[in-house]
Amino acid sequence: MTTIAVSVQERLRLAKDAARQIGLLDADAKTSLLNAIADALDAATDDIVLANADDLERGRTNAIGDALLDRLRLDAGRVAALAAAVRDVAVLPDPVGRVLDRRTLPNGLALEKVAVPFGVVGSIYEARPNVTVDIAALALRSGNAVVLRGGSAAQSSNAALVTVMRGALASQGVSPEAVQTVDDFGRDGARALMNARGLVDVLVPRGSASLIETVVTESTVPVIETGAGVVHVYLDETARADWAREIVLNAKTQRPSVCNAVETVLVHRAAADRLLPELLVSLAEAGVSVHGDPTVAGYDPRVVAATDADWAAEYLSLDLAVRVVDDLDAALDHIRRYSTHHTESIITDDDTAAQRFLAEVDSAVVLVNASTRFTDGGEFGFGAEVGISTQKLHARGPMGLAELTSTKWLGRGDGQVRV
Amino acid sequence: MTTIAVSVQERLRLAKDAARQIGLLDADAKTSLLNAIADALDAATDDIVLANADDLERGRTNAIGDALLDRLRLDAGRVAALAAAVRDVAVLPDPVGRVLDRRTLPNGLALEKVAVPFGVVGSIYEARPNVTVDIAALALRSGNAVVLRGGSAAQSSNAALVTVMRGALASQGVSPEAVQTVDDFGRDGARALMNARGLVDVLVPRGSASLIETVVTESTVPVIETGAGVVHVYLDETARADWAREIVLNAKTQRPSVCNAVETVLVHRAAADRLLPELLVSLAEAGVSVHGDPTVAGYDPRVVAATDADWAAEYLSLDLAVRVVDDLDAALDHIRRYSTHHTESIITDDDTAAQRFLAEVDSAVVLVNASTRFTDGGEFGFGAEVGISTQKLHARGPMGLAELTSTKWLGRGDGQVRV
Repeated sequence: MTTIAVSVQERLRLAKDAARQIGLLDADAKTSLLNAIADALDAATDDIVLANADDLERGRTNAIGDALLDRLRLDAGRVAALAAAVRDVAVLPDPVGRVLDRRTLPNGLALEKVAVPFGVVGSIYEARPNVTVDIAALALRSGNAVVLRGGSAAQSSNAALVTVMRGALASQGVSPEAVQTVDDFGRDGARALMNARGLVDVLVPRGSASLIETVVTESTVPVIETGAGVVHVYLDETARADWAREIVLNAKTQRPSVCNAVETVLVHRAAADRLLPELLVSLAEAGVSVHGDPTVAGYDPRVVAATDADWAAEYLSLDLAVRVVDDLDAALDHIRRYSTHHTESIITDDDTAAQRFLAEVDSAVVLVNASTRFTDGGEFGFGAEVGISTQKLHARGPMGLAELTSTKWLGRGDGQVRV
Repeated sequence: MTTIAVSVQERLRLAKDAARQIGLLDADAKTSLLNAIADALDAATDDIVLANADDLERGRTNAIGDALLDRLRLDAGRVAALAAAVRDVAVLPDPVGRVLDRRTLPNGLALEKVAVPFGVVGSIYEARPNVTVDIAALALRSGNAVVLRGGSAAQSSNAALVTVMRGALASQGVSPEAVQTVDDFGRDGARALMNARGLVDVLVPRGSASLIETVVTESTVPVIETGAGVVHVYLDETARADWAREIVLNAKTQRPSVCNAVETVLVHRAAADRLLPELLVSLAEAGVSVHGDPTVAGYDPRVVAATDADWAAEYLSLDLAVRVVDDLDAALDHIRRYSTHHTESIITDDDTAAQRFLAEVDSAVVLVNASTRFTDGGEFGFGAEVGISTQKLHARGPMGLAELTSTKWLGRGDGQVRV
């Protein structure tokens, strides 16, 4: 961090200048840079853990709860994991420079559409300090400078991590201004970041639905909306019982706190007798609390009566809404009304139903006979994940490095004029 | 237009419902639909011209000026041209359904990333009523519903055009709600459109820089920013004199009122004596008024002294700012400061300079030895142009039908769960 007091605008301008340098680095130079960051993180483990102790202490004083404290904690093992993750990003294919389109005009003007860095990527996020390093590494690998605004709970940890990364940049002859934080400006920092049109090219919020809503509503900088997942699995009339059970259990219980976990299961009325009794027992055995409509409740006394709020709930816990629907159309209607357009899956043996579900469900990822937990950059083979976009502009679904690039048309002529 | 009073929200909801139907039409059905619209426009020529007469009369009363009156005017010939343009769009390749990525996970889950319609495309625009039909045709061809907000000067014409298009949709068994206007809601219509998150998927403003600025600033719906062009041509030390002259003249005079016309010419100091005298004579002969720095003024008494405002000016007229710069770096600095990131061109015989210009200029289209007038969807071979994006998110440069689509991941499995 610079010791001279600068305005937040000035800091963003420094990031923009640094972006020009980062944007011109080739793949090998960026690999070296990221490896230097990883080494610096390893070397600074003690300092980072010490800074993190501040945050933990403040967290305990503020009684933020054990779950949040655990997400906040950085020990030597977690710092090593952070450094390892940076080394993984360091060797991902460089997304910059790919030729995405090529055309030669009749007059001979040769055009190429190439992938270029955005320039400056901003991120506003909460709680876990590892996001600080994750986002910075992904931004740098894709040739971007990055401006970070983390949660106040992790302020000391984030400051330490940013200082280490900036030091590593400088050691490589790269401007440290390519990694910035505006944490020390408090709310003004976040506000400046959201309104820095011309200085920040894209903003990626990561965190709670309310954080994302705020960023989307208040930003004049273009935003990539990530995250919220009211995810559905629909058990069609012809759903295989084993797949229905295994997929619902996996989608709910394998990691309930993440956005691709299922929150509502819809069951075709004609399959309810066949599927529900066994499914409800399995769910109960797995510790899942089912919020069901009256039909569902009729199968199992442990079912809690669902209200309308349940259909819209992103539980992120071992809770699950279950509803019986008349048919595929009713399932599609329900999904249209309550989905956050993240991921939905149909379990069916009927190709026509599968085809309709794929075509008509308006979500980032639509699956047939598979768990919703596959909506993930790592699972998709991207090697890293910037987030999961639930908007339709620019990126949809799991975002890899390619989604942190824009494009530019390059044209090479020999005197062409328009006639 | 419906005769029952509905709220603007309700109208947007109707558009969203209709989008589902449009989105599922195949290429042939969309071709028929657009041909039906073209036929209906031809058949309704008299009604359209009559409605347009209202606008013209109001325009004359309000003394909007001859240039604006001409842009507003629809005669039989212009209606025929509108219909012909729709027939051209009708046969463009369908951008929906293209498979953009394909991967099979190790567990056999088969993923495909396919192009899908956005859903509902909104457009806010000014003056020329032909935009009403243009945008609607492009939106429908790409499987989208469209909500239009035109300029109040063209209100009667736009209402007539929308009525004709809706009638044609109904005649083809397609919901007329796929083409909507919110013109009759006045400013409330525009405001509702800009804040219709969840109902409108993307907003494309077309018009003046101030209109676009308003939409970008006030919208919570994602916006594709189009248009403003402070476009530069840089004459490098080694620029060929004939190319320099022909390209500058073409870029300035072929159609001065459009966004890809050059507004500022930068000249390498070492080439000024060689290039400027002849260039300034040619520009004067072509009726161009040059606003130059003192060095430029020294070559020709007709040169007007440029102020800082000239470097930032989008003249859209036969005015041109000309500045002598010390070298390529100074040219890049000037462009970085004043460019709107639309199009810049370097005229040079030096490959290294060309390469640096291509790499370092951060604009949608960067050219070597060619006129900036080529930044155009038609010239690029897209067959149609939605606008020219000057932002980096989603689309950059000339936008064709592909830029009116989003994507969706489809996954086909046989019981896969995440381990």
